[in-house]
Amino acid sequence: MQAIMRTQLTSTPPTLRWQGDVDGSLWMIDQTLLPTECREIECRSVETVWEAIRSLRVRGAPAIGVAAGYGMVVGLQSVANADRAAFDRRLAEVAEYLAESRPTAVNLFWAIDRMRRVAAKKAHASPREMLERLLEEAREIEREDRDMCAAIGRHGAELLQDGMGVLTHCNAGGLATAGDGTALSVFFAAAAAGKQLHVYADETRPLLQGARLTSWELMQRGIPVTLICDSMAGWVMREGRVQAVVTGADRIAANGDAANKIGTYSVALLAKAHGIPFYVAAPSSTFDMSLNSGAEIPIEQRDSAEITNGMGRQTAPDGVGVYNPAFDVTPAEHIAALITEKGVVRPVTRKTIASVLPSDRTTK
Amino acid sequence: MQAIMRTQLTSTPPTLRWQGDVDGSLWMIDQTLLPTECREIECRSVETVWEAIRSLRVRGAPAIGVAAGYGMVVGLQSVANADRAAFDRRLAEVAEYLAESRPTAVNLFWAIDRMRRVAAKKAHASPREMLERLLEEAREIEREDRDMCAAIGRHGAELLQDGMGVLTHCNAGGLATAGDGTALSVFFAAAAAGKQLHVYADETRPLLQGARLTSWELMQRGIPVTLICDSMAGWVMREGRVQAVVTGADRIAANGDAANKIGTYSVALLAKAHGIPFYVAAPSSTFDMSLNSGAEIPIEQRDSAEITNGMGRQTAPDGVGVYNPAFDVTPAEHIAALITEKGVVRPVTRKTIASVLPSDRTTK
Repeated sequence: MQAIMRTQLTSTPPTLRWQGDVDGSLWMIDQTLLPTECREIECRSVETVWEAIRSLRVRGAPAIGVAAGYGMVVGLQSVANADRAAFDRRLAEVAEYLAESRPTAVNLFWAIDRMRRVAAKKAHASPREMLERLLEEAREIEREDRDMCAAIGRHGAELLQDGMGVLTHCNAGGLATAGDGTALSVFFAAAAAGKQLHVYADETRPLLQGARLTSWELMQRGIPVTLICDSMAGWVMREGRVQAVVTGADRIAANGDAANKIGTYSVALLAKAHGIPFYVAAPSSTFDMSLNSGAEIPIEQRDSAEITNGMGRQTAPDGVGVYNPAFDVTPAEHIAALITEKGVVRPVTRKTIASVLPSDRTTK
Repeated sequence: MQAIMRTQLTSTPPTLRWQGDVDGSLWMIDQTLLPTECREIECRSVETVWEAIRSLRVRGAPAIGVAAGYGMVVGLQSVANADRAAFDRRLAEVAEYLAESRPTAVNLFWAIDRMRRVAAKKAHASPREMLERLLEEAREIEREDRDMCAAIGRHGAELLQDGMGVLTHCNAGGLATAGDGTALSVFFAAAAAGKQLHVYADETRPLLQGARLTSWELMQRGIPVTLICDSMAGWVMREGRVQAVVTGADRIAANGDAANKIGTYSVALLAKAHGIPFYVAAPSSTFDMSLNSGAEIPIEQRDSAEITNGMGRQTAPDGVGVYNPAFDVTPAEHIAALITEKGVVRPVTRKTIASVLPSDRTTK
């Protein structure tokens, strides 16, 4: 493992990048080392990519999709000069193997399937030609992801004014995508347009993505950021420090109800109580039009140890009962607007969602 | 230090207890070891008491007051057979010394002053008689504290029904008093009256008093408890798991605005949004009638390391900006009732507060 994973230290490398041509390799930030160390790892084997996805060295649905695309290329380099039958056998093997790295990551399967379809379409090309075509497709997945982030940023930035305090929860940032992220892309785009923002980042218990990742990302990009505990969000609103809230989403139902990291629902209610607009930034791929409302979104329950032993030591009694939902669902009525790469959905209703997002884009 | 601090392991000792007569000693739970270890320490010198208060082995305003009372007795044992002048010199010395253990703890000064006044009243008694009288006074401080807790529990229990889910924030429990606590006393009294409750305990970042202390205390007393992250409070209300919220308070203004641990304000707003009554349980000594409203309550800002390095390892980037207010203020309009040892104040207005709490009790 160590033998095939080289590391490189830079100041702010991209979350993921391909270096070289078809014989090149995938580099990514090892996010498990953040925020105390920013180190890139080089993946020269599909096993290294698999391990990086499994161990959360790369995380976030779009970023996992991009990693899987390049992971397929890396896994096929050894058969670049084999015959086509051997190439196809290896392709099936690599696809199956990578799909097992994180069994609940929809974007992982989506990216792998996309790569397989490309190969199926060119049944007579040589392995070397195939590898070039697959690298092109992986680059295209990355490019589309960057474009999606940029478009969300562009649309969302219109909603923010110079001098605003803004609050976000969890990490819907560049670390979760190949581009600038979703919620954070809105902040980056507003800043690029000359708007001075001050971001309040919820630390986001239990796994502290806000403390570890969001505050790090904002500091890297020179955006003023203040880290707070989740319990302080209401008070900073009361003190007049926050004029808008922007979060990401994991899944959005046809009526606009949005599932996102646990705590998002509380933040939305607190924003409403203070007359502060609550925005959700998410790509159209996040919408699941087969879900009539948020009530149909299943909520994953996670290990109690994340709460009782989450940060290097035991902080709760042995055997204590714990409730640890990974997500909550914010009803559409509390969402001022949905910010997508296709445009801003406002107000959030079944009808406005359908008009901004053509149905073929939302059933991916 | 170690030489004068013996330890004893029991299942559930009281927070504080005096063992023996005037030659006895003060025992207390070392709360810095909770929740992984429940160990009593014996304080046979005033230095040990001082260190226990300073190091938060004993914490919570009422408990600190009781510790200071007994600490005075411990500090005077060495002059039980001296002449009265030597006794008085030592008394002044011990009082001054103990007062420095936690310079912002009002109950500390109050208890020390009370002990000094007792001594001043009996200017001709022998040191041995004085010591007996002072031990009696320390026991009286403890007894009054227990009675206060019991009365709050009795009044508050009336507000809860059998089968309720209740939520609390931070630790307003027996560990902060010599008795059953304030908010938790309400739960204990309701349970004693045969009402089955299920308590949701916010872990209470950054210092995790809910995870470390409240959940431990409830488990010790056999009250069903589920630990949650602060960010989950809104969601458990949305899911219908909670029918009432009870917290403590650090300071209450004449109009009923209540300062308490950061996060309490958010919980109060979330309760209101779900139509759930939010109650504050606090002794009359918590009321400061010199404060017209909560806007006059100063908010202590605490060290950023509590958030960035709070649990054994660094969880945020070097140099990140942090906002860490220790308290927030919940406006009276969001408080369904104040539960005091004198009775329940409901609705919470300047007038109802003044009628339940005679002014001589609230200017201590």
